[in-house]
Amino acid sequence: MSKNADVTEFVALTPSAKVKAARHGWRAKCLQRLIRLDMPVPETLSLPVETVRAIAAGVMPDTAAMVAHFGEDFLVSVRSSPGNPEWGGPGTVLNVGMNDAMHRKLADSHGQEAADALYLRFVQSYAVHVARLDPDMFDAGPGPGALNEALAAFETEMEAPFPQDAARQLAEVLRSMARAWEGTTARLLREAKGAPPDAALGLLVQRMALGVGPGVCGSGTMQFVDSVTGMPRIMGRFRGQSQGRAAAQDTFFLTRDPRGGALEELAPAVFEELRHYGAICRKRLREEMQIEFTVEGGRVAVIDAVRVARSSRAAVKIAVALAEDEVISREDALLRVEPRALSELLHYQVDPRGPRDRFAIGIAASPGAAVGRIVFSATAAQASAARGEPCVLVRRETGPEDIRGMHAAVAVLTERGGMTSHAAVIARGLGLPCIVGCSDVQISWRDRSLRGPGGRMFHEGDQITVDGTNGEVLVGAAEMLEPALDDGFRTLLRWAETVCDIGIRANADTPDDARTARMFDADGIGLCRTEHMFFDEDRLTVMREMIFADTANDRRVALERLLPMQKADFSALFDIMAGQPVCIRLFDPPLHEFLPHDREGLRDLAEALGRPLSEVTRRVEALSEFNPMLGMRGVRLGVTVPEIYDMQARAIFEATVEASRRGAPVVPEVMIPLVSAAREVEIVKTRIDAVAAAVRTEMKADFAYRLGVMVETPRAALRAGEIAEHAHFLSFGTNDLTQMTYGLSRDDAGRFMSAYVNQHVYAEDPFHILDVEGVGELLLMGASRGKAARSDVTISVCGEHGGNPESIAFCRAAGFDYVSCSPFRVPVARLAAAHFALLAPRNRF
Amino acid sequence: MSKNADVTEFVALTPSAKVKAARHGWRAKCLQRLIRLDMPVPETLSLPVETVRAIAAGVMPDTAAMVAHFGEDFLVSVRSSPGNPEWGGPGTVLNVGMNDAMHRKLADSHGQEAADALYLRFVQSYAVHVARLDPDMFDAGPGPGALNEALAAFETEMEAPFPQDAARQLAEVLRSMARAWEGTTARLLREAKGAPPDAALGLLVQRMALGVGPGVCGSGTMQFVDSVTGMPRIMGRFRGQSQGRAAAQDTFFLTRDPRGGALEELAPAVFEELRHYGAICRKRLREEMQIEFTVEGGRVAVIDAVRVARSSRAAVKIAVALAEDEVISREDALLRVEPRALSELLHYQVDPRGPRDRFAIGIAASPGAAVGRIVFSATAAQASAARGEPCVLVRRETGPEDIRGMHAAVAVLTERGGMTSHAAVIARGLGLPCIVGCSDVQISWRDRSLRGPGGRMFHEGDQITVDGTNGEVLVGAAEMLEPALDDGFRTLLRWAETVCDIGIRANADTPDDARTARMFDADGIGLCRTEHMFFDEDRLTVMREMIFADTANDRRVALERLLPMQKADFSALFDIMAGQPVCIRLFDPPLHEFLPHDREGLRDLAEALGRPLSEVTRRVEALSEFNPMLGMRGVRLGVTVPEIYDMQARAIFEATVEASRRGAPVVPEVMIPLVSAAREVEIVKTRIDAVAAAVRTEMKADFAYRLGVMVETPRAALRAGEIAEHAHFLSFGTNDLTQMTYGLSRDDAGRFMSAYVNQHVYAEDPFHILDVEGVGELLLMGASRGKAARSDVTISVCGEHGGNPESIAFCRAAGFDYVSCSPFRVPVARLAAAHFALLAPRNRF
Repeated sequence: MSKNADVTEFVALTPSAKVKAARHGWRAKCLQRLIRLDMPVPETLSLPVETVRAIAAGVMPDTAAMVAHFGEDFLVSVRSSPGNPEWGGPGTVLNVGMNDAMHRKLADSHGQEAADALYLRFVQSYAVHVARLDPDMFDAGPGPGALNEALAAFETEMEAPFPQDAARQLAEVLRSMARAWEGTTARLLREAKGAPPDAALGLLVQRMALGVGPGVCGSGTMQFVDSVTGMPRIMGRFRGQSQGRAAAQDTFFLTRDPRGGALEELAPAVFEELRHYGAICRKRLREEMQIEFTVEGGRVAVIDAVRVARSSRAAVKIAVALAEDEVISREDALLRVEPRALSELLHYQVDPRGPRDRFAIGIAASPGAAVGRIVFSATAAQASAARGEPCVLVRRETGPEDIRGMHAAVAVLTERGGMTSHAAVIARGLGLPCIVGCSDVQISWRDRSLRGPGGRMFHEGDQITVDGTNGEVLVGAAEMLEPALDDGFRTLLRWAETVCDIGIRANADTPDDARTARMFDADGIGLCRTEHMFFDEDRLTVMREMIFADTANDRRVALERLLPMQKADFSALFDIMAGQPVCIRLFDPPLHEFLPHDREGLRDLAEALGRPLSEVTRRVEALSEFNPMLGMRGVRLGVTVPEIYDMQARAIFEATVEASRRGAPVVPEVMIPLVSAAREVEIVKTRIDAVAAAVRTEMKADFAYRLGVMVETPRAALRAGEIAEHAHFLSFGTNDLTQMTYGLSRDDAGRFMSAYVNQHVYAEDPFHILDVEGVGELLLMGASRGKAARSDVTISVCGEHGGNPESIAFCRAAGFDYVSCSPFRVPVARLAAAHFALLAPRNRF
Repeated sequence: MSKNADVTEFVALTPSAKVKAARHGWRAKCLQRLIRLDMPVPETLSLPVETVRAIAAGVMPDTAAMVAHFGEDFLVSVRSSPGNPEWGGPGTVLNVGMNDAMHRKLADSHGQEAADALYLRFVQSYAVHVARLDPDMFDAGPGPGALNEALAAFETEMEAPFPQDAARQLAEVLRSMARAWEGTTARLLREAKGAPPDAALGLLVQRMALGVGPGVCGSGTMQFVDSVTGMPRIMGRFRGQSQGRAAAQDTFFLTRDPRGGALEELAPAVFEELRHYGAICRKRLREEMQIEFTVEGGRVAVIDAVRVARSSRAAVKIAVALAEDEVISREDALLRVEPRALSELLHYQVDPRGPRDRFAIGIAASPGAAVGRIVFSATAAQASAARGEPCVLVRRETGPEDIRGMHAAVAVLTERGGMTSHAAVIARGLGLPCIVGCSDVQISWRDRSLRGPGGRMFHEGDQITVDGTNGEVLVGAAEMLEPALDDGFRTLLRWAETVCDIGIRANADTPDDARTARMFDADGIGLCRTEHMFFDEDRLTVMREMIFADTANDRRVALERLLPMQKADFSALFDIMAGQPVCIRLFDPPLHEFLPHDREGLRDLAEALGRPLSEVTRRVEALSEFNPMLGMRGVRLGVTVPEIYDMQARAIFEATVEASRRGAPVVPEVMIPLVSAAREVEIVKTRIDAVAAAVRTEMKADFAYRLGVMVETPRAALRAGEIAEHAHFLSFGTNDLTQMTYGLSRDDAGRFMSAYVNQHVYAEDPFHILDVEGVGELLLMGASRGKAARSDVTISVCGEHGGNPESIAFCRAAGFDYVSCSPFRVPVARLAAAHFALLAPRNRF
């Protein structure tokens, strides 16, 4: 066995030893911290990563010297110490050093039974993990004769007696653990958890704290907060006469419990000592730790301490509590909560501690969980809501006609669609739990039934639970956790706001949306889509009259009937937002979206309009389009049928004057959609300015407004300089911009997007994660050209991407003024923005 | 009347006088040239533009000095001399200087009748154009007493006798002409012809050559080529005892004619003198000129010479003849033919000399004219073609299902659509005369009739003429001119090829297209769309089986049946192109284009496939898309259903080996459509390379091929650098790129494009004229990024824009290697490219 001074080094963990996590692993580092805090950590040697790598390559350190280091009664555990606790590592091997001599010695000091158990346990581990013998041959529980059987089996298989030399035992254990780390499966597993390809392992050789023997003996774990709620509470387990992390059965409780004996009663001094160590950890390690300990004859040994595993709501609670106790700074508290985790807190969740009877699984499209009875149509959903019965709307896929059904439902489940399907987008906007693309189920409209895997059937009225957080459909009513919009959550958001250096607005179409936006302290409304306002039944009729008007004048008459309704819409929003900015996008969709396409609908429409069916059919056909996404919509309607924008502008301005009289002054933002040429903006601006002037005169009131452009065609991004000359703000509509940059319809992409992402054709679904390379370049070009032409132009993003941490990082780096996202994404966006503000410097134009 | 040395200048037109067109107008310049060529031009004074401008502003030159200049017998004409002959100008005023004294003098020398006529003519012009009296009062023809009546009427109206002072007459005539030029109507008219707002006028005062009196007297025009054909031929007219351009009636012929007397016989010396002058003009002015002349007592005076008006075919003939006679250079000959004019030569044209009974007018979508009987369906067109009867396919609009009907028709007429509608694009590709957007007519399918303006009706089988050059539908069979693909045309194209510094390829899908491409000496095929190949009935059935295949294997079996057909398609193209490059675009359209959508079609399909109707309907519905343009097509099919591209690649490579064995070696170019990410190219390339390797082995042959990408999504342009790493060539598909950059579907834009262009929202229809600012920037970015990543990458444009002179200029300037356009556009593109090569330096990357 060759030796080398560099790669066979090991160090004793003393308070002054040089121990770094990168070289010795996180566990070595953590143990040294505990030692420095004067905790009773058993004597430990640390083998740094080079030593372990050398062992795997066959170059052994001097194990005899290690044995000598521990002195006469050599009995140790070998534990792994990877660079990061997430990466796993080979399991601990206990009782290295056990041999016939030590067995006899322990029988004298701790009793025969304890000595047998310790030796047996080591023989078993050694046989299986080091000698790689069949585990079945060594699975006998402790009992008379078991030890001798195991030693005999070992000798038969290995054709040699069980090794008695402690140095050799230790060498073999170290080698087997070092090699296990290099195995392909272990590498794949840790890489799946984010470990780099060269992730290294340190090993620890620690004197055994036995946990067996006379007096109070045993082992356990202890933590001081609830992993689910984050509230202060002592949790854990203790098992007498046990070593390491024993099985959960036969467990004692730590604190007094009606179900049985507890450490608190059995050994109050031990219990208090552990509590004391917990408090020290929290204060000095600045974290809630779970302590692993052993008690031997009433003496406590702290074997290890790990960060308490925690739910999202617990993470918030713990971070805020630590900061409020001034253990950590508020900035640290913010950084300790993963932004995406916040979305879990906004909704009811299925309690992870309850039973789950999973029926099917689909794409988790909108987080949160809800229990309701199955309905198969928007009408049924509304009827159910009217009866006060929570319902889940189950559809093959949803369309604009389902919106009111979605409002009435507590959750949505669709057989088709992806993360950016209609159902998913609307549900996220409404904060409604939603599962899409649930191809596990088949909907039968005729039978009003849902057939799941294995032929399991559900019918209309059956109760299910939709878990939109992980995409699972559960049978019946699962146990639920309430939303955690508590003080901790609010405090964290408030702290985030103080450090956040990019605005976070909400996309809000309705008063409910606006109230949610306010609740989450959004910096205003970044996108109010007005077209949803025309789908109410009474409005739809007028809209259709407008569409069928023969002259501009008839059109104006119909629009005049819509004016008070639109004005009421905007008044409500202005009142709720109380002076905060509200950006209203003018009418965007193609008119044919407001027309029926089936025979029955056409007949009804003809009757309602008092026109012959043939004429109605012809005109509906004439309005239909090959590619509606690229058709007669947005500003193209604004230019060719200007009466619609005239009416909307008037509604906005009249509402502005009235709301300003009632409360805070309103400066509305009016946004023109689908612009592709600066001249479009000029034309619309001229008319809107005229409407504003007229309203000022008629209402004898002055008001300002800001006119802007939704940049959602590649050409608008390219020509942003010219466009900005007529615009106070440019807001990138990344949904449409992505569609056009890729030449990819969101509605049609579902059929191949998963294949594309699986084959890494696209790194990510670009409708879900902003395509920084392509669409992102257009954003950067548009923003810099806009700013160059007009330095005070406001730049923002208002697409679905707005709430994603990746997009926020991108927009901050590019100097955008704000992002806008669905109201329920505001907290996530806010916290993500706070993280970036704390971690990265901000570039400005 | 104030005087100013600068602005009252006039100069005598002598050989040495300083006369510039910019200052004196084109006519002054031209007359001086004639004088320098020793032609008998009457004595002439030129008033430069400043002088004329001053006159309009009331500052008069010294007209008495002018009168003095001409000496005793002052009798002159005043003619306009604008900067450009196209701009028009006030009409010539003859006989200025006529008064009672001159009248008497002329009566003695030329006879009473001639003297009366000359005086009357001047009084009439003066009264109407200078004194602005009612023309009706002065419209009496020459006759006894007419002169006295006119003089009396003038005196009554003006309350003063007709002015007798020649200097005053001249001053008033000059003033009236100078002011007429400044009038609003005159300005609008000339600006419509391209004159700048500050276009200036010069005036000429020329001694009258009387054309009346004893001996051979008269006036006329003469030219030496045919204005329609461009062939050498003496044309023009001569009228005895007349002044200026007399009315065409009572005209003598120049040359001997069975219909009556001719100048050639009447005065052979005069005739020969004029021929001589014509020859001098052609040689020294280097142009075919029309000479305006007067003969007075056998003496010829050359009054003017203008460039012969000419048809497009005449323009080509004249330019080539001048160059072949070494009067001008070949380069000059090229520059003298307007590229767009060439397209007229490629087709039959309605003879402009024949009668036209116009029935309706629409958008001239594809040039040329054809006569045929009306049919209302593709089937009827095919039946008509089978009977050998030329037919015109009349449809509301066309779709892929009409392609074979279009092949069978001699012309196409649609009620709807614009320059880039399906009908227009396909017709241009086929070189078929086509009128689209003919909203003048209403098609009744039920009656098989066509109702035109004023209720005029046509029925199936009625004969009409479609003039696709100017958009007119004519009743019956109009007189036609044959295509002029004669020697002159071929010679010009050959010369163009020698100077052209950018490649011109043709888009060709069929052997006919390819033959046309060869006929016009295209530099290869730049775009062969393969999808048209699948619409033949026998192939369509197999395609549908392929689409309905349940497994990849079933799909492969169906595709194997298509393989020999595809291979035959490519073999034919390779053979015709004889080693020139052929760029084949892999399958592009969405699969649902190959499926029926009406009930009957679905039923037939279900029967043909032996599957239940419900299943067929469901699968057809599942394949339908919201925005097919942005859906599952192009490389997205290539990645997700790779068997189609595999089959196509095999067909291409097998055809390559066989064609190379038969003739010139073929290096096929394989182009991937709708790419938006480099990885798509990598994936397809790997499979195609594998197919190539397999074909090499199986056929024991080696061959090369070039793989390229059709850049038609904005993202592909942005990521062109990455993409070029896997591509030998990048070809911009500007049709789709325009759609996506604008977010504008070509199929749906027709409904508002004309409103948009009329309101100057878009300067031009971007599907017709390349949008240099938006789409153009993406072209430049894509090209430069592609070249930066791979310096030998070939860059081209293969969209509809490829053949437009504007796009060619853009692509040349940007260093593109070639443009590709429909075969019938190749000559236009070639000549335009030659023009740019002669006029502008070429930038290279």
